Order: sequence, then structure tokens, then C-alpha cells
Amino acid sequence: MTRFAFDAPTVIRTKRDGGVLTDAAIDWVIDGYTHGRVHDEQMSALLMAIFLRGMNGGEIARWTSAMIASGERFDFSDLRRDGKPLRLVDKHSTGGVGDKITIPLVPVVMACGAAVPQAAGRGLGHTGGTLDKLESIAGFTAELPKTQIRQQLQDIGAAVFAAGDLAPADRKIYALRDVTGTTESLPLIASSVMSKKLAEGADALVLDTKVGKGAFLKTEAESRDLARTMVELGEAHGVSTRALLTDMNVPLGRAVGNAVEVAESLDVLAGGGPDDVVELTVALAREMVEAAGLDGLDPADTLADGSAMDCFRALVAAQGGDLSQPLPVGSQTETVVAPHSGTMGDIDAMAVGLAVWRLGAGRAAPGHQVQFGAGVRIHRRPGEPVAAGEPLFTLTTDTPERFSAALAELDGGWSVGDSAPPVRPLIIDRITATDVRSK
Amino acid sequence: MTRFAFDAPTVIRTKRDGGVLTDAAIDWVIDGYTHGRVHDEQMSALLMAIFLRGMNGGEIARWTSAMIASGERFDFSDLRRDGKPLRLVDKHSTGGVGDKITIPLVPVVMACGAAVPQAAGRGLGHTGGTLDKLESIAGFTAELPKTQIRQQLQDIGAAVFAAGDLAPADRKIYALRDVTGTTESLPLIASSVMSKKLAEGADALVLDTKVGKGAFLKTEAESRDLARTMVELGEAHGVSTRALLTDMNVPLGRAVGNAVEVAESLDVLAGGGPDDVVELTVALAREMVEAAGLDGLDPADTLADGSAMDCFRALVAAQGGDLSQPLPVGSQTETVVAPHSGTMGDIDAMAVGLAVWRLGAGRAAPGHQVQFGAGVRIHRRPGEPVAAGEPLFTLTTDTPERFSAALAELDGGWSVGDSAPPVRPLIIDRITATDVRSK
Repeated sequence: MTRFAFDAPTVIRTKRDGGVLTDAAIDWVIDGYTHGRVHDEQMSALLMAIFLRGMNGGEIARWTSAMIASGERFDFSDLRRDGKPLRLVDKHSTGGVGDKITIPLVPVVMACGAAVPQAAGRGLGHTGGTLDKLESIAGFTAELPKTQIRQQLQDIGAAVFAAGDLAPADRKIYALRDVTGTTESLPLIASSVMSKKLAEGADALVLDTKVGKGAFLKTEAESRDLARTMVELGEAHGVSTRALLTDMNVPLGRAVGNAVEVAESLDVLAGGGPDDVVELTVALAREMVEAAGLDGLDPADTLADGSAMDCFRALVAAQGGDLSQPLPVGSQTETVVAPHSGTMGDIDAMAVGLAVWRLGAGRAAPGHQVQFGAGVRIHRRPGEPVAAGEPLFTLTTDTPERFSAALAELDGGWSVGDSAPPVRPLIIDRITATDVRSK
Repeated sequence: MTRFAFDAPTVIRTKRDGGVLTDAAIDWVIDGYTHGRVHDEQMSALLMAIFLRGMNGGEIARWTSAMIASGERFDFSDLRRDGKPLRLVDKHSTGGVGDKITIPLVPVVMACGAAVPQAAGRGLGHTGGTLDKLESIAGFTAELPKTQIRQQLQDIGAAVFAAGDLAPADRKIYALRDVTGTTESLPLIASSVMSKKLAEGADALVLDTKVGKGAFLKTEAESRDLARTMVELGEAHGVSTRALLTDMNVPLGRAVGNAVEVAESLDVLAGGGPDDVVELTVALAREMVEAAGLDGLDPADTLADGSAMDCFRALVAAQGGDLSQPLPVGSQTETVVAPHSGTMGDIDAMAVGLAVWRLGAGRAAPGHQVQFGAGVRIHRRPGEPVAAGEPLFTLTTDTPERFSAALAELDGGWSVGDSAPPVRPLIIDRITATDVRSK
């Protein structure tokens, strides 16, 4: 019996039965799905088989390459500043609750002299998206033509844009994973992140890989594997890549939503803001500056001297945003108060993330509109003293019928106790190409 | 955090992670898929998760019930003959190569005094379908309204009809499984077969569960599990059910295709035909007659005395068929001859099934038209003497460009050796409700 050219059921059965997909099979199935010859129901069966059977390193690398090849790969290597090649570096977070770090981080890195070509995403599920947050600024747009991305990198040193034509196969697969229960898979997460990030045209990439209740992968071992896999993928594609493993059991900062996270980011850029947001911003900026080969600068100084704030204003202005307009605030509020005095315990990032999603800050399906003014303010962080009756959380939305579901999500996700919860380090580990090579 | 009503990703994730689906979740997902609220890509991800994680007995029973409930369940319990309730019994084969047994079997059982309400299928993949075979008779139709099915059962004792409104959820899922590599799964096969068969309105059911190279499940242990599961499902739904485990390593009979299988069935009804086809027809008829409570009759007598042939003629006539017209024969033939003298070895049922499919007797996708005249005639069965140069197989089609692919499938699927291959029993075992209860 001879075997004829590829067909989708045969490729699916190979992975279903625990086999290894050949490079040619991966190229065929990604190209076929991009162009509609492989159908949604076939790709979703294959994704579930990959979820349950896994992919080896070679398969993940080829799957990523095939997704990059499904669209354009930017090349900004000809850009110059002061006669020298522009240092292009980007950051990606695997997604957390209250994770507004990109908003203060990009201007800090700009102020340090590197350029940031950032393809950012919209939120889906319990984690928000950077684009949804920035679009709460009046006039701000992330739908940039490639010529404008190039011009902004040259002129001001950053562009934050919707992935658009980058890795269109990933965009289709990402939307499918969301509705078919195939999101939390290491090979699928790693290839999705890296296909977009490697197509951006950066020379270096720093990954913020989340661990804990609010992360997509729950255990440190899984997150570490994901970080190592992504560092390997980056290096294999000629992009200097490193990762921080950071805690995502508790929301970052004191604000979770869209506009409220921009407001908190502006506090950080003004030299204030919550300690954890500042700590993670500076740590990631140091990695990015070092990865870009711009040693000697301290990113923390750019928050103190206002230069990062200037860069943020320039970035927002270049993309049509008007910071003189007030940020949106939901018209309706509900407050959760302390049932008794004591010390604030841990706050479950997943509970807060789902509450914010229920308030309308996130979307239930791709294409849904988000409420820019919806969100949760956290008045007492873990370990802070609490007096009976004082506000712990303020929930905000324009649609008060959402409060009951949001309060139900929050319920059981926090506590007031007798003593402070154990303190966890925010930055758990650092994984470099050297670590991966010596594996 | 509270859980809200069902949504497809949550149901999929439960099975993906090895959990048990509740009755309510199964009812919701089958009803939702039948009515388009659960989408193809979601059902295919769930089917792959079921394929790889399995279902327990309770889940299979509920999945089957939910598929029955997606459509009509026939009730012929009011039909009477000679003042007594009509004995309604049916048979189902899990699918094999050259498996035309339904064609002689239904009239044998009619001649013994039972009535057969048979919902039959069309072929897909390497196994043919009874309807494709019967429709090679000029004028024959299987698209019968329910009133006609009832009338034929009353008047002549049988109707062979397309499943139509029976278990529409199964029809959608079956088509999806075929294109998503989720066919060969015990829970999915068992629930698919039994949802249609239990909706037919029979009092008793006999299953022919195939084992071997040409079967969907390859090992005897898997086929035995399938048979036990289906017997349990039948008994749980109040239908007296038993199964035979039969060999499907070698094609049944000497003809594989559509019209050629009808011709071979007519030989059997005329008192001749290949030994294995006669043996299996009589064995299944004995089980059906006993299950219907009509002991004392020998089905073999109905082949010898012509009464089964009379019943077949009545059945064909009732459904518009004209046996006086010649059966279709493909216009082009190709012959495979013996390379040397010796004894015919085993013939791989899968190789023959795929060759016949390549010749156009089967379909590559639901809705495709089959060639009634395409097929393979087997001139030498395993163990028969062979002289160098004499014909072993004749391939027939109307589209000669199909020969090369068909010959390639056949290649390596047979051999001529020095001695006869080992003889395997055709009927391997018999599984009754008592066997299952004593498990």
C-alpha cells in the first residue's frame, strides 16, 4: 500500500497516536490552515492531540517557523541612530492580572536609548491586553501601517502596534484555542508567543514568564519549561533571548482593568506607584538594556528624572493619543469592606482577574468591545493592616447588572487574618541562553 | 468563585483533563451541537479528548441516550401478525470488507417469521455500506417515509432504510469524526452504532463485531470490549442484545464492491455462494431468530427451499427495485495474475478494501457519488491452489485512471506460497447479556 500526499486526518492521527510530525507535515498543515485547505474542526482536533500528546523541541521549532512564514517578518536592521545601528529590543509577558508593566517599561527602555518594536495583544479571558489598556487613552490607535512603525522607531524609539500581518496562522490558531479548551499547552503557548515576537524584527527579547494562580501555567516547573523553550526558540531564530520567572499569585499593583491600569502606570512614570510594579518594570528594563548592549545606564534613573515620562508622552502623541483628556471611569461602583480588623491576607489573582472580566473590562469572545472604565481597585495589599468596615476593593463598571457575578468571582479570593501572609519574591529566577545550552 | 451554566470550553477541558462528564453536561453538549450552539471546532476538540481520555460506562450510556433523544425513536410495538405482536429484530455489523451479509440475512430472517426494521448506512473509507450496495439495483430506494417503513414491516416483514431522522446528533458527529481522525474510538463507535440501532424500534438486536486487519478496531481485546459495551448499552435501553465476534482479516466472500456484492448475495439466496458468506449469514440468522423468540426454525432451510429468495424479491419490489434489470458492471477491467504456481496465502482485507475504494466503489467525503459497477473479484481464496499466470483478482471500474492507485493498494496485500495459511475460525466468540452481567 502506498501513502499519498498529506491529508489532514493522517496528520491528526499521527499526533493522536503519539507520533512526531515531520517538518513537511507541519509546514503543510500550517500553510493549509492559513489558506483554508485545512478546516477549523481539523485544526482543533490536531490542537487537542498536541495538547495531550505534546511536541518535541524540533516540532515546536518548526511549528513556530511555519507560523512566522505564514506572514511578513519585519526587518529594521537598516535603521541608524547617530550613525550606529539602532538597538531593537522587546519584551513579552505570558499574561497576568494587573500586568500593566509594558506601559511604563517601553518608555523607560526608550529613555535608555534602545528602540522597542512591540506587537501587543488584546485581552481574552481573565488577563487583560496592553492594547485594550492603551486604547482607553482618547485617540490612541495601535493599528499602525508598517511605514509608521518604522518611522516611530527611527524618530522616537518605539511603536506599540496590533500584530496585524505578523504570523496570521497564529492569529487564527489563537482564536480557535480559546473556544476549544486548548489554551494552556506549553508547545502551543511557546510557539504562539514566539511566532509573533520573532516576526517583529527585534534583535533581542526579554520574556516575563508568570508563575502562580493568575498565570496560564500554574506550576513553577511548567513555567520554567515554558521559559526555557521560548529562550531556545528565540536563540534558534537568531534573536538574543532571556527570561525572568516572576510571581503571579497576587495581582500586580493596586489597579486591575483598562484605564485604571494606565493611571497607575502614569504614577510609576511620575516616580511613584506601587512597589511591585516599579520593581518589575526596573528589573525587566535592566534585562532589556543589557540584552540590547547598552550597559552602564540605570533604568531606575529614567523614572526619577522624568525622562521616561517624556518618552511615554511622545509615544502616545505619535499614535494619536491625547493625555490631556480624562481617562474613562465607570459610572457605577460597588465597595467590598473589611468584615473585621486584622491583616490583609493573600489576594487570588485569578479571582480578581475573573471579577474584572465580569465587570466588562475583558471580552467573552474575540471582537467584543471592552469597557475602558471597568475594573477593580485594591485598597489593601497582602500584609497591610485592615480596620473593620474600611474599603478593601472598589469595583467599577458602566453596567451594574454585572456586579453580582463579579462579586461572586471575588468571593473567597481574599481574606483578613491575624498575621501577614508569607512574603514571596516577585522575581523567582532568570533564565539565559547559557542556562538553556548547558541543560 | 461560582460556576455559571455550561459552556463548551469548560466541558472540553473537563474531559481533556481526564474528568468524568456529568449527565447534564453530556445532554447539554449533544443538544447544543445538534442545534448549532456548540460549534464543529468545539465538538471535534471534545471528540479528540474523548478519543485520548476515554469515557466510562455511565458516560457512554448517557452519550448514547442523548444522541437517541436528538431525534425520533420509532415504536412499532403495536404491530400484530396472526393476532400476536410482531417480533422485531435487527442486526448490525461494525463494518468489514466484502461484508454483504445484511443482503441475504434480512430475507432469511423474514422467511423465519421475524420482522427486520433496518436503518442502514452508506460506506465511508475502506468499508462499503449496505445502502450503496442495494442502490445498485435499478430503482431501489432507501429513502422511506416512516409510514412506509411501518407498512412494509406489517406486510412483508422488513424495511431497509436510510437512518434519516434517527439520532441526527450521531449523523453530524459521524461526519465530523471522519475528517478529524477520531473514528477508531470504542466509546464513539459504540454510542454511534447503538444510538441509531436503539432508535429503530427493534425488540432485539444482534451485533456482528469484527476483529482483524479489515476492522476498525484491530485487536481481539478491543473488539471484545466494544461488543460487551454495545451489549450493555442495548440491555440498558430495554433491547435484548447479543454479539458475535467474527474474523475480518480476510475479505468475506469472493466479491468486494457494490453490484458485485449484490450478485454474490443472490448466489447465496439461490442456495450457493461462498462458504464463509453462507456460514456467517446462517449463524447471525440463528441468533436473530432465537433473540426474537422464534425457536425451532432452521434459517439454513430458507436458503435451500427458496423462501429467503422470495422474501428478498418482495423486499426489493416494495422499495422500488427491479431485479429483472442487469446489475451495473464497470466498463474497464484489469487483472492480477499469479506470478508462479503454489497455494494462495492470506489476503489482507484492508488492502482489498482500499483498492475497491480507489476504484470508485467508496467515497472520499460524505455526499460523493459511488460507482455501482466498481469492485474487485477474488478468484482464489486463501488455501486454494494457484497455477502460474492464472487470474487471482479482477479489478473493475468506469474510470481506468484509478487502476494504478488501486493496484498500489493491493500490492503486498496477498501472496502465493508453498503451503496453505493457517485456518482461522470465522466465528470467534459469542457474547450475551449473561456474559456481560457476570463480568
